Amino acid sequence: MDSSITLVPMDLEAKVEVFKALADPYRLEILEILSPKIRCNCHLQDQLNIAPNLLSYHLKVLREAGLIEGSKRGRWIDYSLTSDAAEMIAAALPERLRP
Amino acid sequence: MDSSITLVPMDLEAKVEVFKALADPYRLEILEILSPKIRCNCHLQDQLNIAPNLLSYHLKVLREAGLIEGSKRGRWIDYSLTSDAAEMIAAALPERLRP
Repeated sequence: MDSSITLVPMDLEAKVEVFKALADPYRLEILEILSPKIRCNCHLQDQLNIAPNLLSYHLKVLREAGLIEGSKRGRWIDYSLTSDAAEMIAAALPERLRP
Repeated sequence: MDSSITLVPMDLEAKVEVFKALADPYRLEILEILSPKIRCNCHLQDQLNIAPNLLSYHLKVLREAGLIEGSKRGRWIDYSLTSDAAEMIAAALPERLRP
């Protein structure tokens, strides 16, 4: 990230929410899968081999933390990382720990 | 962080451990306090106004995740961020989310 970007200050609760969202193996895998490209929930379902309601739960946690967003396409939903996911994580970290 | 640094690959379990360690308001505050300088447990105790055994627990979680280290000085322990804490967090994040 360009170090000249000004990070929006976050309150402690919002920071904790970001890290809670990251602190799960399925959710980290979902973020890895979405890192290179947009993927539909059907693709995530196949890749992760996970029960549909458990996948929905993990997608909800990631969405509520502001890390991913979904866009309806027929009976599927296309998921992608939000444009400010990386900055949000940076803002949630103490300054010296921002990679 | 210099983008030329090669990050050591981590397994999924270790990545989750890093984010679990970050996903707590007390632990984020401890990392903020240790960001500018080394601090003894007595200082952390005063700053956070927290029960000693709860502070010990949070310090243990951060130590076990590899984010902080302690060095005994008489009856106190001086805590500091580990030199590779920032790189460890970067390595735990999906590539596009590394700030």
